[in-house]
Amino acid sequence: MPPKVILTRPLPASRGLEGGAILDKAEKDGLIELVRWEEDSPVDRQWLLEELRKGGTEGLLCMHNAGSSLKVVSTMSAGFDHVDTSALKKREIRFGSTPDALTDATADIGAMLTLMASRRAGEGIRAVLDGKWPSMPWNPLLLCGQGLTKSTVGILGFGKIGQLTLKRLLSFGISRCLYSTSRIGEPLSPSRDFFQTLPLASYLGVEMRPAESYDQLARESDFLIVCCPLTPETKGLLDASFFEKMKSTAYVVNTARGPIIDSDALLAAVQSGKLAGAGLDVVTGEPNIPADHPLVNEKRIVLLPHIGSATVQARSGMSRDAALNVLAGVGVEGYEWANEVKL
Amino acid sequence: MPPKVILTRPLPASRGLEGGAILDKAEKDGLIELVRWEEDSPVDRQWLLEELRKGGTEGLLCMHNAGSSLKVVSTMSAGFDHVDTSALKKREIRFGSTPDALTDATADIGAMLTLMASRRAGEGIRAVLDGKWPSMPWNPLLLCGQGLTKSTVGILGFGKIGQLTLKRLLSFGISRCLYSTSRIGEPLSPSRDFFQTLPLASYLGVEMRPAESYDQLARESDFLIVCCPLTPETKGLLDASFFEKMKSTAYVVNTARGPIIDSDALLAAVQSGKLAGAGLDVVTGEPNIPADHPLVNEKRIVLLPHIGSATVQARSGMSRDAALNVLAGVGVEGYEWANEVKL
Repeated sequence: MPPKVILTRPLPASRGLEGGAILDKAEKDGLIELVRWEEDSPVDRQWLLEELRKGGTEGLLCMHNAGSSLKVVSTMSAGFDHVDTSALKKREIRFGSTPDALTDATADIGAMLTLMASRRAGEGIRAVLDGKWPSMPWNPLLLCGQGLTKSTVGILGFGKIGQLTLKRLLSFGISRCLYSTSRIGEPLSPSRDFFQTLPLASYLGVEMRPAESYDQLARESDFLIVCCPLTPETKGLLDASFFEKMKSTAYVVNTARGPIIDSDALLAAVQSGKLAGAGLDVVTGEPNIPADHPLVNEKRIVLLPHIGSATVQARSGMSRDAALNVLAGVGVEGYEWANEVKL
Repeated sequence: MPPKVILTRPLPASRGLEGGAILDKAEKDGLIELVRWEEDSPVDRQWLLEELRKGGTEGLLCMHNAGSSLKVVSTMSAGFDHVDTSALKKREIRFGSTPDALTDATADIGAMLTLMASRRAGEGIRAVLDGKWPSMPWNPLLLCGQGLTKSTVGILGFGKIGQLTLKRLLSFGISRCLYSTSRIGEPLSPSRDFFQTLPLASYLGVEMRPAESYDQLARESDFLIVCCPLTPETKGLLDASFFEKMKSTAYVVNTARGPIIDSDALLAAVQSGKLAGAGLDVVTGEPNIPADHPLVNEKRIVLLPHIGSATVQARSGMSRDAALNVLAGVGVEGYEWANEVKL
């Protein structure tokens, strides 16, 4: 009997998702028995528990959401706040995630939000949608933002996504980058410079410097981009006292996780003019953000519905890595882990 | 008597506009007599004609909007569709514009709109504003766009703005750039590579190739960015037959002038799925674009209210160049033309 694998969301190969094609082929070749949740909606808990109760399930491929035979859980996501990893560890179930396929897409959103916040794109779009363009009184400073030229870009969390986000911005005429690795003050080792960001900065004459402290990052950044993981240390790191130290012409961007920023403190800083604005792809409480949420109503804050990894290419790569993780996890020959998380 | 100069909009030095400071100093030093329109609204035509009728005016500094003593007209803008240049030529009035100070700001908007169109930022923002985020059914392709990685970027009009726009995008992992200079098929001469875009492309392994024809630009571009001036040749260049040749996954961006694109043809191409979407900072008929304009209502098109040069830095530089042009034009010693347009 081939190992039984449960797939909790459709991954249509016909729509360009490579992981769907990999699983279809493994099923067709008789290497796995694939049990699919067929609807384009979150998997029904009862259905899933029933399938697991039937026994024999060795692999589970889930997204953003486990009988005794279960050997592997594979999530199609980079983060895994939604997975009870201690339960997996206790039961010796292996676990895979897909952190790499979304780096490009997320870095692009970081660069885009840096531009959108500083060029007041949210305000501009709203003015057009509300029909205000015909009657806006033009003056030389109408809808003027801050350019990136000669600015200092701060990157909080200089891992893969942080490095690639900064790389995107290197050709925008910036002067300097301050960055924080997991040990503040420690320079990026060339062996961990995954995208040759350091030599490109050198080629373009951009000064690269590890921030000595979070204080320095707050005080000197014209654009501060949050790219670090959410941990007990980073939760609420950007709070009222942090914003207090920032320049009034500075912008904050977050493409990582909402709770790294204290939303109330951010709103107060923008409303009082202590901060020029913000661009957010993530926010505490998402997706339960109604139209009357105070952050939605602050025109200097532009808020996107967590689309950092939303490219066909990234999602296809994530589906591929998730499929490989589940197939390797159940022991199908010829498939290797894309990324196993050591629990 | 110092030369009389009319300024048709306030240029407050207190708000960072360098041109305002230059004119204030020239006035204080008794080098010019400055007549100011004091209100933050378009200059009143009757007031302006009355001032000109009084005689003695040698210089006029205008924005987006001339007796016999007039020697110079200086516009604080790059384009000058709003100026009757043939009348100026006939009366031997010299003319200055400010094309250079806005290159950085406009290139940034081009890069931003490329990202916003392809990552469906307009749709994402609207979903949040409309309160739809909490109930959006997540699936692996929700709000997915196309990444820039390995794409071909087409630049229509490879002058200063086109070159700098492309330079911004070079570090986004693109594979190739097709560009058109004023003579289609002609490679960019290194002496006209104003921002060292060619060597950076070479460093990053991006292939640079002059498009052999507009057809090739249409057929092969994944992202086509319009950066050329509006001329009789470029008016309506992107029409139905042009869009017909484009890839259905391609995006069009326009930061130049609205009428280069046939709006109806663009709308039809996007609505029929022949084109994936567009990002526009300019549009035919602007600023008279009401909320019920069909382009505003097409979610795959993101429309900004012409904010290409809207940074404090660009507008300050434009005000500086416009002030220098008017002071040089009326012959105040020690001031040189920033940019005189030969009529």
